[in-house]
Amino acid sequence: MKIAQVAPLHEGCPPRLYGGTERVVSYLTEELVSQGHDVTLFASGDSRTRARLIPICEQALRLNPAAQDRLPYHMVMLSRVAAQARQFDVIHFHTDYLHFPIVEGLGCPSVTTLHGRLDLPDLPPLYAEFADIPLVSISDSQREPLPWANWRATIAHGLPRDLYSLRAGKGGYLAFIGRISPEKRLDRAIEIAQRVGLPLWIAAKVDAVDRTYFEETIRPLLAAPDIKFVGEISDAEKGAFLGDARALLFPIDWPEPFGLSMIEAMANGTPVVAFRRGAVPEVIDEGLTGFVVDDMDAAVAAVPRALQLPRKLVRQRFEARFDGRRMAGDYLRVYKSQIESSLAPRRPQRPMEKVPIPSTV
Amino acid sequence: MKIAQVAPLHEGCPPRLYGGTERVVSYLTEELVSQGHDVTLFASGDSRTRARLIPICEQALRLNPAAQDRLPYHMVMLSRVAAQARQFDVIHFHTDYLHFPIVEGLGCPSVTTLHGRLDLPDLPPLYAEFADIPLVSISDSQREPLPWANWRATIAHGLPRDLYSLRAGKGGYLAFIGRISPEKRLDRAIEIAQRVGLPLWIAAKVDAVDRTYFEETIRPLLAAPDIKFVGEISDAEKGAFLGDARALLFPIDWPEPFGLSMIEAMANGTPVVAFRRGAVPEVIDEGLTGFVVDDMDAAVAAVPRALQLPRKLVRQRFEARFDGRRMAGDYLRVYKSQIESSLAPRRPQRPMEKVPIPSTV
Repeated sequence: MKIAQVAPLHEGCPPRLYGGTERVVSYLTEELVSQGHDVTLFASGDSRTRARLIPICEQALRLNPAAQDRLPYHMVMLSRVAAQARQFDVIHFHTDYLHFPIVEGLGCPSVTTLHGRLDLPDLPPLYAEFADIPLVSISDSQREPLPWANWRATIAHGLPRDLYSLRAGKGGYLAFIGRISPEKRLDRAIEIAQRVGLPLWIAAKVDAVDRTYFEETIRPLLAAPDIKFVGEISDAEKGAFLGDARALLFPIDWPEPFGLSMIEAMANGTPVVAFRRGAVPEVIDEGLTGFVVDDMDAAVAAVPRALQLPRKLVRQRFEARFDGRRMAGDYLRVYKSQIESSLAPRRPQRPMEKVPIPSTV
Repeated sequence: MKIAQVAPLHEGCPPRLYGGTERVVSYLTEELVSQGHDVTLFASGDSRTRARLIPICEQALRLNPAAQDRLPYHMVMLSRVAAQARQFDVIHFHTDYLHFPIVEGLGCPSVTTLHGRLDLPDLPPLYAEFADIPLVSISDSQREPLPWANWRATIAHGLPRDLYSLRAGKGGYLAFIGRISPEKRLDRAIEIAQRVGLPLWIAAKVDAVDRTYFEETIRPLLAAPDIKFVGEISDAEKGAFLGDARALLFPIDWPEPFGLSMIEAMANGTPVVAFRRGAVPEVIDEGLTGFVVDDMDAAVAAVPRALQLPRKLVRQRFEARFDGRRMAGDYLRVYKSQIESSLAPRRPQRPMEKVPIPSTV
């Protein structure tokens, strides 16, 4: 199949450091190449791929201090995609809704995976307007604010099977990984670790918008004994960081659409203790790969139980559910279905005045 | 002519309070209607127009606290424009570059007026990619960072001739109007007024991003005697505010693409003392409608001379150069030229690999 993958330009594919969407696009792209598909990747020029790379900018925009406005580069990318669209059997967009206005004119079937949260008041009019664009969610929870949108599948993320391997958690610490921001609740992770009497190691980035939160709320907490802040880590370091941890703490307070670091932990055999928000209950198999909790007392009670979970079974469950081959197979089914429906006779366009616009604003 | 005007959704057309782009779109739209054209205005639903209004959102987004992300509404608007495009003879976009990816597929000639600054490092690759889209600048100065872009005309803004009238400057104060932000240099205006010994009245809005600057740098200066801060004013109040002023101070420190308030002052007969940045020397007729200065001493020396300028001649010069009928006539010429070239045989599309992309990033 001739497949185009259209990635955001904020990070390379895969990202050098933090970054979820471009990481998943990279895993999917490389797996499709391995399966023999002809894949073209529209992405930042510092991406590393075995697909045909169409580089839009030289460097990932987040790590490039010269890039002030990221939108123009994405507009350039849309132009490049449109110019080549008829060469592909299917185009898979990961660019949120930026491409929606060009989709109808592409002359090529498309699939859009939404990677972000959808509970924002400005989105219903958008998804009502573009009601014909086929969408994939990354969890069922992610869909909840827009249940009527044009969903074609929920496809959970997957990782390359051999990216991580079963490790023993011999570092003796609990882990927190990701972004430091109020909704990720590192403060809770610190309190949980202190109450269970285990060290907490933190691998995290701090965005400019979260700098004040970090300085005022988080930095004072880092001075406590047994708290180790290691900063933003690379992929190469992540296996050791997560695999040497006894458990991952994921005490989020926002509607997390997936939570990639949970399955990265599981791939290393590391169980997860997470708060019941967003996709968490869909990702964790309760009592097998971790525990889902509703409050701090439950979290503190769950950690010793998580430490008892057999790490080999955590890894097995990862292989059964979150292998990148499963993810690629799921996407190939959606691609085929879109290609088939594009060959079917087109149903008549709805007249403008009948398009429902639940304008909330 | 069947003309579509596509306005940004940040403000209504015209804006209730501050706002340049939507104000100019409104003036142009109403003048085209007056001249007998069939005009459709894509804009915020609280716009007031004699054209056919296609309301995209109920309220202007800047004044709607429920609107967190403004981009989805603009995407909805692009979809509505595309669906109706073949009904128009020409589509006039005022939406920066957001519509660039859909322009080629519209099946209708278009013109894009750029209202903002263009000296940003992320823009050259964008304008190189979309090199076929016809552009109008609002001053020659605005073009300087992108002299090779597809410019078809420079068209200075205009105001409805009767919106303001000659007033006598009897308030006895100097005026500052606009947005409070570092590049507008209200601090300079205050110092100039103090050094020439005249009161300064300030009509300005403070955006959220400029709140810290306002509190830390500007607020302490407002406590001085003879400084009066009147906040954000409406159109109805603007005539009295500007017309009762003896002169407008415009001590900017950024590449202002036009500077609408300068011609608003002139329409009231009020001369302008402005710093030589951006479009200032193009808008002011030196020694006739005001003075262009290079430093603070020159500004202080220019104010008494500006007060001597005959206000009637300032108003006359406004009528000669910045009447909205002149602006509409200039645009109609560009519309006709685009319609004619769309009827000419299309030159072959350049192959992808030959599009020059001066990727600076």
